[in-house]
Amino acid sequence: MDITAQHRLFGGTLSFVKHDSAATQTPMALSVFVPEGEGPFPVLIWLSGLTCTANNFTEKAGAYKRAAELGLMIVAPDTSPRGEGVANDEAYDLGQGAGFYVNATQSPWAAHFQMETYVTHDLLELIAAEFPADMSRVGLSGHSMGGHGALTLAMNYPHLFKSVSAFAPIASPVHCPWGQKAMTAYLGPSHEAWERSDAALRLARGKALPFDEILVDQGLADPFLETQLMPHLLEQAAKVAGQKLTLRRHEGYDHSYYFIASFIDDHLDFHTRRLKA
Amino acid sequence: MDITAQHRLFGGTLSFVKHDSAATQTPMALSVFVPEGEGPFPVLIWLSGLTCTANNFTEKAGAYKRAAELGLMIVAPDTSPRGEGVANDEAYDLGQGAGFYVNATQSPWAAHFQMETYVTHDLLELIAAEFPADMSRVGLSGHSMGGHGALTLAMNYPHLFKSVSAFAPIASPVHCPWGQKAMTAYLGPSHEAWERSDAALRLARGKALPFDEILVDQGLADPFLETQLMPHLLEQAAKVAGQKLTLRRHEGYDHSYYFIASFIDDHLDFHTRRLKA
Repeated sequence: MDITAQHRLFGGTLSFVKHDSAATQTPMALSVFVPEGEGPFPVLIWLSGLTCTANNFTEKAGAYKRAAELGLMIVAPDTSPRGEGVANDEAYDLGQGAGFYVNATQSPWAAHFQMETYVTHDLLELIAAEFPADMSRVGLSGHSMGGHGALTLAMNYPHLFKSVSAFAPIASPVHCPWGQKAMTAYLGPSHEAWERSDAALRLARGKALPFDEILVDQGLADPFLETQLMPHLLEQAAKVAGQKLTLRRHEGYDHSYYFIASFIDDHLDFHTRRLKA
Repeated sequence: MDITAQHRLFGGTLSFVKHDSAATQTPMALSVFVPEGEGPFPVLIWLSGLTCTANNFTEKAGAYKRAAELGLMIVAPDTSPRGEGVANDEAYDLGQGAGFYVNATQSPWAAHFQMETYVTHDLLELIAAEFPADMSRVGLSGHSMGGHGALTLAMNYPHLFKSVSAFAPIASPVHCPWGQKAMTAYLGPSHEAWERSDAALRLARGKALPFDEILVDQGLADPFLETQLMPHLLEQAAKVAGQKLTLRRHEGYDHSYYFIASFIDDHLDFHTRRLKA
C-alpha cells in the first residue's frame, strides 16, 4: 500500500491510497478517513458514480464532520481500473470511470474490469490489514452507478455488509440505457447474466435479505430520474419481496454532490445505528 | 447577471453567477448561497487563495450546512479577472488566479487587475441588487491570499464590513516571496504603496479598527507557514495596535481545504454572532 497524500481533518486522518489489486490486475486508488481514537471503527464503504474517481466524494460530500462525531471510518474506492493497458471507451458511461461494480466476462473488459471481486474481496482485505477497521461492522452506500453497486453487492454478499443505503441509484440496469449498454458490454447480451446485478430484479426474486431497512434518497429535479434511475422499480420490488425500503423523494434536488451533501449525515446516522447495534 | 448553474442544497439555493464588472472590465464569476426563507440575510464574503476559482470553496469547504442553519448568505468570488484579453503569467502566483485583492497600477496588470474595487464595490453592488442580502451586515473571510485580502480590505473599508476572520492568511506580503513578487508586479517597487495592502503593517499603524475581535486559524503542518504566511507578524502588530486577535494554531493541519472544512463552522458562528448583534 502506498499513501500518496494524507491530511488531518476533524481530528482524524484522511489518506489517499494506492494498492495493487489481484482482481483488476492494476493499481487501485481510494481514500480512507479514520476518525480520532483507537478503534477498531465501524466502516462505511462509498461507491461513486459514472465519471468519478476516489476524489469526488472525498472532496465534495462534506461527510467527515459527522463521521468524526460518530467514530465512523469511510472508504471511497475508485470506480474502475485505470491505466494505459486497461481497455477504455470514449463514452463517459463505459470503460474507465464506469466499472458498474460487476465482474466482466466479455472481451476486452474481462481482463481488468473485475470490480465486484475488487470491492468484496481485495478492498475489504486491504482495509482489514492496514486500518483500524472492525470488519464485522461494514456498511455500503453509493450514488447513481455506485448506488446500483451498493444495493446489488449488499444483496449478493449480505454476510459482508450489515447495512445498505443509496443516493439516486440506478435501480434496474435492465430497464435503462446506461445499464443496457454497460451490462451488454461487460456481461454479454443475455439478461439472465444481468439479473443478480440488477437491484430491482434481484430484490424481486424474493430471497429474504437480512437488512431491516434500506434507505434511498432521490432528488425530484434529477435529470436522470425518469430515463435512467427509475426508483419506482425498486419500490415495487421491495413490496414484492417484503423488504422495508425507505425511499425519500426530495423536491428541487438534482443529481449533484450538493444533493448528496444535503442528506449524507442522515445516511451516516442510519448506518451507524445499524453498525453499532 | 447570468446564472450559469443552480443547485438546491440544505433547503437553500446555490447559484453560479457571471456578471460584467466595470472595475475589471471583464466578466467575473462567483457563487452565491442563499438560505431558505425570506431574508434579508446577513452575508459572508469568502476570498479564495492562489490558483482558486469561485468553485474551490463552494465544492470543498462544507460550509453550507451550518450557513443554512444560521440563515447566512455566502458569496465566493473568483480570485482575479480572466480571459484571453487579460494579462497573465505562467507562474501560479501571478496574474490570472492570483489577483491579490489590490488595484494594480503597473503595466500590463492595471487594465484589468482591479480586485480591490471589484470586491468592495462591484461585487457588493451586485449582491445588493440581485439577492436578498442585508448590506448593513456583511462579514469578510478568506484563505491564504484570500486571508490577506479579507484582512486588508476589512481594515481599509471598515464601514463596509462588520466582521473579519481568516484561514492561514499571508500576514505580511512585504515579508514573503509571494507578496514581494505580486506587489512589485501590481503596485511597483515602492514599499510605501504596499503598506495599506499588508495586514501586519496596516494593523501596526495603530489606527483604531472597529472590530472587537479578529479570528485567525493556522495549521502547524502548513508547508507555507514559515516562508510565506508568518502569522506571528500579525500577532505582533495586533499587540502594537491594541487589536484583539484570536490566533489559533492547530497541530497537524495543513494548507488544504480539509483544514478549512474542519474549522469553517467556527468562523460562520463567529461572523453570525457579530452580524446579527
